[in-house]
Amino acid sequence: MAQSPYQQLEQEFRRLHAFRSSASLLRWDAAVLMPKGSADLRGDQLAALETECHAILVAPKVSRLLDRAAANAQGLEDWQLANLREMRRERDHAIAIPQALISRLAKAAARAEVKWVEAKQQRNFSLFAPHLEELIALVRDRSQLLGKATNLAPYDALVDEFSPGLTVAEIDKVFTALTRRLPSLIQEATEVQARAPLQELTGRFTLSKQRQLALEIMRSLGFPFERGRLDESEHPFTGGVPGDIRVTTRFDANDLLTGLMAVLHETGHAMYDNGLPESWREQPVGRDRGMALQESQSLLLEMIIGRSRPFVQYVLPLLQKTFAVSGPEWSADNVYRLLIRVRRGYIRVDADELTYPVHVMLRYELERDLLAGDLKVSDLPEAWNESMDRRLGIRPTNDAEGCLQDVHWAMGSFGYFPSYAMGAVIAGQLYERLRSDRSQLDDEIAAGDFTGLFAWLKENVHSIGARVSAPDLIEAATGKPLSAAAWLRHVEGKYLES
Amino acid sequence: MAQSPYQQLEQEFRRLHAFRSSASLLRWDAAVLMPKGSADLRGDQLAALETECHAILVAPKVSRLLDRAAANAQGLEDWQLANLREMRRERDHAIAIPQALISRLAKAAARAEVKWVEAKQQRNFSLFAPHLEELIALVRDRSQLLGKATNLAPYDALVDEFSPGLTVAEIDKVFTALTRRLPSLIQEATEVQARAPLQELTGRFTLSKQRQLALEIMRSLGFPFERGRLDESEHPFTGGVPGDIRVTTRFDANDLLTGLMAVLHETGHAMYDNGLPESWREQPVGRDRGMALQESQSLLLEMIIGRSRPFVQYVLPLLQKTFAVSGPEWSADNVYRLLIRVRRGYIRVDADELTYPVHVMLRYELERDLLAGDLKVSDLPEAWNESMDRRLGIRPTNDAEGCLQDVHWAMGSFGYFPSYAMGAVIAGQLYERLRSDRSQLDDEIAAGDFTGLFAWLKENVHSIGARVSAPDLIEAATGKPLSAAAWLRHVEGKYLES
Repeated sequence: MAQSPYQQLEQEFRRLHAFRSSASLLRWDAAVLMPKGSADLRGDQLAALETECHAILVAPKVSRLLDRAAANAQGLEDWQLANLREMRRERDHAIAIPQALISRLAKAAARAEVKWVEAKQQRNFSLFAPHLEELIALVRDRSQLLGKATNLAPYDALVDEFSPGLTVAEIDKVFTALTRRLPSLIQEATEVQARAPLQELTGRFTLSKQRQLALEIMRSLGFPFERGRLDESEHPFTGGVPGDIRVTTRFDANDLLTGLMAVLHETGHAMYDNGLPESWREQPVGRDRGMALQESQSLLLEMIIGRSRPFVQYVLPLLQKTFAVSGPEWSADNVYRLLIRVRRGYIRVDADELTYPVHVMLRYELERDLLAGDLKVSDLPEAWNESMDRRLGIRPTNDAEGCLQDVHWAMGSFGYFPSYAMGAVIAGQLYERLRSDRSQLDDEIAAGDFTGLFAWLKENVHSIGARVSAPDLIEAATGKPLSAAAWLRHVEGKYLES
Repeated sequence: MAQSPYQQLEQEFRRLHAFRSSASLLRWDAAVLMPKGSADLRGDQLAALETECHAILVAPKVSRLLDRAAANAQGLEDWQLANLREMRRERDHAIAIPQALISRLAKAAARAEVKWVEAKQQRNFSLFAPHLEELIALVRDRSQLLGKATNLAPYDALVDEFSPGLTVAEIDKVFTALTRRLPSLIQEATEVQARAPLQELTGRFTLSKQRQLALEIMRSLGFPFERGRLDESEHPFTGGVPGDIRVTTRFDANDLLTGLMAVLHETGHAMYDNGLPESWREQPVGRDRGMALQESQSLLLEMIIGRSRPFVQYVLPLLQKTFAVSGPEWSADNVYRLLIRVRRGYIRVDADELTYPVHVMLRYELERDLLAGDLKVSDLPEAWNESMDRRLGIRPTNDAEGCLQDVHWAMGSFGYFPSYAMGAVIAGQLYERLRSDRSQLDDEIAAGDFTGLFAWLKENVHSIGARVSAPDLIEAATGKPLSAAAWLRHVEGKYLES
């Protein structure tokens, strides 16, 4: 029997998935174990795969099939209709940007990233400035084309690309609420914490033992080692693809807790990937629902679960057993308070749960102004420092701890930053509902039993895939529209507890 | 300016290379570190890449370009003309076999391999027999189609696929010479060796130290670690691609020498890959000149160089230093004689330099008879045992040490076996010329200096790529047509030395 247009589309996207997942594995390999001298070759391989993916999406065949499938949609089920919508979305995005602009952007970003490294090392923004200028002009073009194709304002189109369904209006509402409460809350939390001095965990923590501990914790969390691995790389990330998930982390012999929290963060991503609807894995509707949702899963595990008293109760005996440590600094209370220590700092990636959104909001405001032309590139360093001073009361002493600290802009990545803070807020909202649905959660976590936690997340988040938009997913899961309220309640309870 | 047909072809084959090299990396990953449960997904990824490769070759566009490039060949240089010939060859092979037969063969082989494992474990050939029967019928069809497309007899077409330019007539000539001399030579060598008893190397050899030693030796050999790696896998192999060569091996704590020789074998392959003409890497003419040549490079390093007195002189101090061993069994003479010990055994992969070709010739005869229909599958076990008895004077006691020992036939691989013995013979012929060109070779090897060896191989073998056929390459390198004479002189000198 001849295949229906919809079935033929599934076939095309299955091919797309095979190429994308191959590329994902090649990227993981490049970050984890590829010999340095093979980078050029790897670049060629990835470019060939990406070109092929793009060619599939922009082929007249796919557009023709999309039209025919839409005209014959009456026989399709919910999941298939949602899949059709996601297929169209991918096609729209691919077709919106001409190949010439894609390749100009890729080349400009490659040049800019090299210059960014140099500028950061030399603490000299002017080396990077012309490249950032060029990139912003190209990203602006791109955002306008994307906006036209998706019927969104340019910056909304960039946000939507990373987190489908998330809008600037939604983000602004949340960020306004955060801005209203966070500065005073950070101040209050700092005062509360100052009352009880902390004891640092000193000593050296053998890397092989940290690795063994990480594996044990990941096993308890339910990470599927028969279809995934843990390795080490310069920066922790979750790569591969559902069915072969490659988590990486980085251990530091002097810093046990940071390595441990990075493992939780990545495992949060990995559990999301692993919980995506298995029968839709090769189709667009089976993908995660964007970066804000991804961050909600990693931050829920790292920031909310991982930095909680029940989790410390579970993990402390493991630490003591693995490293044969004891003493007052290893008390449950001290370890917990080390994990939730609030400190105003310059560097986003080192920030704590409470100050982290402030870093994101600063970038969000600046990148919108840069793209809108309201902020000149040459004024960026001063605007950054001024904003940091206003928001956190600290002023970077050089651009390496200021506007040069992140690689995102150098990669041409704009519209991504908000997903970090939105992820935290979503995590807070999911967590509040999770606790009300599951009163025994704390006891389970303290006992090292995470099955209830992940069963809830799988049912309400992971298994939904990309069937509905991010805001709809959140509302269906929690019974409430997305807002900052739950997360603010969570951090108020946690950081003002005396 | 518009690209010429030839330039457009280079473009298409560059894409092909990117897909093939990606697939090669995915296969390496599957063998070295992929989680077991991801095998299905990996199968899908590889199938998508292979389908894409096949589609490129059989596309009307490529055939049209090949015709137009051939009609405008007057402006092309030697390498380009040879590249065009190799492109056409790849197209001819791809187009010869209908997709339906490819996929029937792949499925039959997948089923057969599972049954082969079972049959071998249970030592029960009848479990495997119907699958082998099915495979042989399909391979027969394939060989006839391939023969028609390449103007060769069916079995010649299979041989030519693995080792372009090598013919049954050539193989028969060599194998006749080997069959005439080897049985008596094996007998004489055994008698010579029996006169001086050997002392085994006992003890346990820490795997991490074996690995460290392997890395040190590979570095001395000139393996390019900035563009390659050494890892471990169930079976040693050389994967990846020039520019990112992935060698694997397997260490056994009880058996130092076998692991060491496996490293040399794979490094021989790797150095060939690494020495291929760099500017043609992405094109068919830049590939190795087939499996017999590949084996010549691995066997030259493992069997001839690695099992020689000068090499023992170089490696023995490293062994003594690494494992802190001493005693009479660690004398240069004893270690050398352990490395060249001749023993009649059932298992090909355990065979020594002298008996190895006998195992290959046995398989060659049987697989030709099976494909020609002159030997029934049900008669294979007895034919095998009878041939082994006639050739080596030993008779397998069960099929696991008889006709079930190798996986090749279960994979549908016919026409491959001769390349193993032809490789040995080619290695012998290259080595004879190498020594006459380079009188100081033994001293260099004894001193751990392999630059002269590999400079010669690079100039005369590696850098030729696929520019000429295997027999022409050998004749150009050695000044003589391919024959068994040099290898027989080599083994006579080596094994009758008293």
